[in-house]
Amino acid sequence: MNTIGQIVRFTDFGESHGVAVGGVLDGVPSQLKIDFAAIQHDLDRRAGRVVESGTSDSGECLPVSKRAQGEKDEIEWLSGLLDGVTLGSPIAFIIRNTNARPEDYEALKDVYREGHADRVYEQKYGIRDYRGGGRASARETVARVVAGGIAKQILAKDGITVEGQLVQIGEETDRTKFAALLEDVQRAGESVGGVVECRIKGVKPGLGEPIFDKLQARLAYAVMSINGCRSFEVCDRDANGQSVSCGIVGGISDGNDIVFRCRFKATATKMKEYGGRHDVCIAVRAVPIVEAMAALVIADN
Amino acid sequence: MNTIGQIVRFTDFGESHGVAVGGVLDGVPSQLKIDFAAIQHDLDRRAGRVVESGTSDSGECLPVSKRAQGEKDEIEWLSGLLDGVTLGSPIAFIIRNTNARPEDYEALKDVYREGHADRVYEQKYGIRDYRGGGRASARETVARVVAGGIAKQILAKDGITVEGQLVQIGEETDRTKFAALLEDVQRAGESVGGVVECRIKGVKPGLGEPIFDKLQARLAYAVMSINGCRSFEVCDRDANGQSVSCGIVGGISDGNDIVFRCRFKATATKMKEYGGRHDVCIAVRAVPIVEAMAALVIADN
Amino acid sequence: MNTIGQIVRFTDFGESHGVAVGGVLDGVPSQLKIDFAAIQHDLDRRAGRVVESGTSDSGECLPVSKRAQGEKDEIEWLSGLLDGVTLGSPIAFIIRNTNARPEDYEALKDVYREGHADRVYEQKYGIRDYRGGGRASARETVARVVAGGIAKQILAKDGITVEGQLVQIGEETDRTKFAALLEDVQRAGESVGGVVECRIKGVKPGLGEPIFDKLQARLAYAVMSINGCRSFEVCDRDANGQSVSCGIVGGISDGNDIVFRCRFKATATKMKEYGGRHDVCIAVRAVPIVEAMAALVIADN
Amino acid sequence: MNTIGQIVRFTDFGESHGVAVGGVLDGVPSQLKIDFAAIQHDLDRRAGRVVESGTSDSGECLPVSKRAQGEKDEIEWLSGLLDGVTLGSPIAFIIRNTNARPEDYEALKDVYREGHADRVYEQKYGIRDYRGGGRASARETVARVVAGGIAKQILAKDGITVEGQLVQIGEETDRTKFAALLEDVQRAGESVGGVVECRIKGVKPGLGEPIFDKLQARLAYAVMSINGCRSFEVCDRDANGQSVSCGIVGGISDGNDIVFRCRFKATATKMKEYGGRHDVCIAVRAVPIVEAMAALVIADN
Repeated sequence: MNTIGQIVRFTDFGESHGVAVGGVLDGVPSQLKIDFAAIQHDLDRRAGRVVESGTSDSGECLPVSKRAQGEKDEIEWLSGLLDGVTLGSPIAFIIRNTNARPEDYEALKDVYREGHADRVYEQKYGIRDYRGGGRASARETVARVVAGGIAKQILAKDGITVEGQLVQIGEETDRTKFAALLEDVQRAGESVGGVVECRIKGVKPGLGEPIFDKLQARLAYAVMSINGCRSFEVCDRDANGQSVSCGIVGGISDGNDIVFRCRFKATATKMKEYGGRHDVCIAVRAVPIVEAMAALVIADN
Repeated sequence: MNTIGQIVRFTDFGESHGVAVGGVLDGVPSQLKIDFAAIQHDLDRRAGRVVESGTSDSGECLPVSKRAQGEKDEIEWLSGLLDGVTLGSPIAFIIRNTNARPEDYEALKDVYREGHADRVYEQKYGIRDYRGGGRASARETVARVVAGGIAKQILAKDGITVEGQLVQIGEETDRTKFAALLEDVQRAGESVGGVVECRIKGVKPGLGEPIFDKLQARLAYAVMSINGCRSFEVCDRDANGQSVSCGIVGGISDGNDIVFRCRFKATATKMKEYGGRHDVCIAVRAVPIVEAMAALVIADN
Repeated sequence: MNTIGQIVRFTDFGESHGVAVGGVLDGVPSQLKIDFAAIQHDLDRRAGRVVESGTSDSGECLPVSKRAQGEKDEIEWLSGLLDGVTLGSPIAFIIRNTNARPEDYEALKDVYREGHADRVYEQKYGIRDYRGGGRASARETVARVVAGGIAKQILAKDGITVEGQLVQIGEETDRTKFAALLEDVQRAGESVGGVVECRIKGVKPGLGEPIFDKLQARLAYAVMSINGCRSFEVCDRDANGQSVSCGIVGGISDGNDIVFRCRFKATATKMKEYGGRHDVCIAVRAVPIVEAMAALVIADN
Repeated sequence: MNTIGQIVRFTDFGESHGVAVGGVLDGVPSQLKIDFAAIQHDLDRRAGRVVESGTSDSGECLPVSKRAQGEKDEIEWLSGLLDGVTLGSPIAFIIRNTNARPEDYEALKDVYREGHADRVYEQKYGIRDYRGGGRASARETVARVVAGGIAKQILAKDGITVEGQLVQIGEETDRTKFAALLEDVQRAGESVGGVVECRIKGVKPGLGEPIFDKLQARLAYAVMSINGCRSFEVCDRDANGQSVSCGIVGGISDGNDIVFRCRFKATATKMKEYGGRHDVCIAVRAVPIVEAMAALVIADN
């Protein structure tokens, strides 16, 4: 239920305002030297602390949640490594919730926030952690990015890369206009949807299964599990009357680049209403999360 | 790999031009009286032998593959039933491939058909069943419709219904114009894509999991596993500035109708090139298959 | 629930007095030429139609159930094969229940047989197939032997063999005395337990997992799932003060022969009480079933 | 691979001389008030810090590993709880390895200890954590006891109890003689095997599946995954000519007490040879571990 994958399996845990979020990544090959800086860089992208290429003229990051940018995201590695090299045993890690401010949320204790999962949580579990949405929070995705970062390094040994980019905000597809658009939306106290495109290079032919575990089905499952993601499509639309391969035929990779797009909805909780610390466009910080989920799927083979 | 589901689990087998296609549905509650006619009706819909509501003024079916319409699709029930009532044990069934014409395909033995999975199959398995594409064929979906038909009857006991409809062919969204459009495309020896919308009514709040097994992720996985399906989206776009629920919040059902759409690409194999028996628009016959996959997901809880 | 294995997965179906028993074996490598005679030979061993080596001076089989010996056990292959060679797709097969005699069992319709699972089945499912015990019957093991026969052939390509033998009946361990002992027990209308030893040769070091999926745990699971099996042990007891390897260290194969023993209880239903067609010692025919389960475990890697 | 269970799922991590051992228990119902003292008590039993009932006249614990007794085993709860009540989300916890003494093991860096999994680990992973055996260590079982302690509390709500006891050491079955026997063995620098019996009371009829997931098969799998466990048997041997139920019929619970026994081998590493801190009889401290594994199986339904 909180585990994804069969061979490379990721189990995710942690409430957004509890002690920590974290995960266990099982099935990682032994003797892989981990590049911790690369993982930290993906965490910084997720937090909106570094500029995504092509999204800024000014050298400034796109506007995102203040909490995310302020949270330190320091990883404690608990198992599975010896001197930075994988042992083949489960890799467990946590990121403590240093920036949690329960007092911000105390006021929400009896308020069901529109569009949030609070109500369904209470219906399902009879209890919910009102402190920041509990599990149903962007905070949970920190652990995905760490696990996905390791998955990317597993793939890199086979020459496989996974790269996402923000290709649309609202109806805007000119990336040089994203910053200005987001500032406008932010000033208006509104939020806006966006689209992430992800390209996976270097996958050999033969990955995926012909019936249920089609590669596009597994990618759809993984990506649609990200908070706020509302659609998934593999990109083989005709271009100038020519059909362009999405890298998958009959559920199985064909050796071409695998390309898919996914759309994120506008944020449910409007900034002006709750004074919260939410994103004006969750698609912005979703880029490394989409990459992480795609990398976990491709590595799980 | 050829199994979907955890509690209600469906295992699918069979090559399109082998002895039979079939499946095993495990986890069905005991003491369910099976309505065999309803399952046969879904098979007839899949074969294009009955008119989908709203798609015809003339009372004629939309044009589909001749093979599909001609195949008898008689189900042999092998286990799990006693006097038409489920025993709680696995329900196995087969549908023999009575209309297989290997001679049609003998000519293709050494031909890789553009857009078909033939080449990747040979790369993956070192062998392929050239007789009609083996597993990578619409024929395989017969078994899905049977299993999905049982799943619908499991759900019906809880007041849940699953209904799909064809809502777009090419760019056309006026259903009364579908028949004429398809005839034009067919005459031109071309094929065209389409969109199926599916509505699930009666699901109680609480279905789905908050992180990876979000309900939309599981639906996306199941639907994207259908041959030719290229995109999946949950339908909660704004309508007149109002956000409309897609029936899922934070991965969990909220009690509203669950609505999603999926797009099927144009058929890979053009009729004029191979003289084959393929569909001019695979989305037409996909409607009961989409329903089947959705029903299997919702029943698997 | 009716599936075992992760990579090589076997799904089993069929009631003992329904249309057929059968199974689906998924994950078999492509391009394996199947030796059908070897599989039929294992079915004949399971039926007590051939002499197990070392168990007979007279050239006669040990006494077993008349039904088993009389049932023809003809396999119908439904999918996954082309000209006797595996395609890499699921291999489905059935064995029809030609020798079922529902009238024998009609009388039992309202009788709970002591030691049989009839009562718990009714408690669990609210219905049971009184025709011969439904699923809780030795008949179900036919499908295991077929699937295990394929698994053995997968293993044989890697030089791995799986061989079981009956090493104890009651307290008797001298195999040349088994036939006489069984005849005595049969005449008395009683039944008796027995022990099967299984030796797996040729497994390379490294199979198994260090924590839960220890090789001995997976073997225990598979073997304890056979009807009537009451104990499992890996055989590394001291021999003359020397510890002898059972082929598994810390859950992982070490390259030595893997040896385990399992004990089968005396048959629950006494022959004299019901006039049924049961075995005097179920361990006799269990030998190829134990081999099948062990082969499925070792092949599932 | 490092996960056990389907509905209540336990994932285990940690090297014995790394930062910590720990686990994630997923699928625990929400709103369960956790009795932390009961879990700590089981950890104290596992460490040999409290007397098992019936094993001591003197009030002293049976002799066990000094490391185990000295290790503090303080649990840090990372997620899944709010004010000591379960949220329905994954419960993650760690126990830091405060008493690790890498220097003791530095000497073993290039030594393969007889009977230890060191050699097969290196063959499997190409690397091993020589610091105390890495994963292949009794230390790993701390996490099992914590998870099993929660599972017991899930079961207690349904009136189910799981109780193990040491019933045999070497050939000795008189529990009042265990302490003296163990002291003799310890003085001789030897080790000895033992047998644990476990009784599960209060399970309603209907638990377990009829074919592969027979209740005894799942128990065997779970118990045989404990380090040093060599055999498993369900206890329905005849008593005075009367067959006594083991609580399982045809793979399914029948409402009677479920009773099984498991045998642990003598410790591989002799104390006198390595000056290590190993147990003279690993069965002694295995009692709460066996209970934990049984509780996890019964709760996973």
